[in-house]
Amino acid sequence: MDKTICPKFEKAMSLLGQRWTGMIIYQLLKGPQRFCHIETTVGVSGRVLSERLKDLEQEGIVKREVYPETPVRIEYSLTEKGLSLQSLMKEIEKWSETWVEE
Amino acid sequence: MDKTICPKFEKAMSLLGQRWTGMIIYQLLKGPQRFCHIETTVGVSGRVLSERLKDLEQEGIVKREVYPETPVRIEYSLTEKGLSLQSLMKEIEKWSETWVEE
Repeated sequence: MDKTICPKFEKAMSLLGQRWTGMIIYQLLKGPQRFCHIETTVGVSGRVLSERLKDLEQEGIVKREVYPETPVRIEYSLTEKGLSLQSLMKEIEKWSETWVEE
Repeated sequence: MDKTICPKFEKAMSLLGQRWTGMIIYQLLKGPQRFCHIETTVGVSGRVLSERLKDLEQEGIVKREVYPETPVRIEYSLTEKGLSLQSLMKEIEKWSETWVEE
C-alpha cells in the first residue's frame, strides 16, 4: 500500500468498524427510511442510532431530509459516498457468512 | 440481511475495525514475514503488533511458524481464512482512496 493511502485506509476501517455503523449503512442501502424503521429493523437503541446517524451525516455518508408535511416526515438516506459502500458491504457479508462463527 | 448473518457481520466489522488490524492483514497479503519486518513496514509499535498478531492467531486469520534454525526464525502468514480477506481489503482501499479525506 502506498504510504499516502495508509491514513485513509485506517480512517475508513475505524469508521466502519464502530459498533452498529455497518448494520445501519447496510440497512440504508435498501433506500430512504425513517428513524423508527431503522431502529426496529437493525435492533439498535434510539440513543445509539441517533449518535451514529449524526456521525455518518458529519462524514457525508448519510443525509437527513425533512419533508414539511403534517406531521413532519424525516427520512435518512445514503449520499453518493454512502451508496458507494455497497460492494464493500457485500464483501464483508460474504466473508463473515463463510468464516465467522457465532 | 438475514437475521442470522447480523451477529457475524458485526463480529467481522468490529474485528477488522480495530486500529492497525487492517493494515497488518494488508501487509501480510504480500506473503509470510518476520515480526520486525511487519513492525517497520506498517509503522506500528512492537507492543501493539504483538497484541494484534495474538488476536489474529486466535481468530484463525494469522498463523505463526517457527523454523528451528540458528538463530531461530519465526514467520507470520495468513491462513486460508486470512487470505480470503483479499477482495474485502481491496474494496476498503478503493473506497478510502476515493472518499476519505486525510
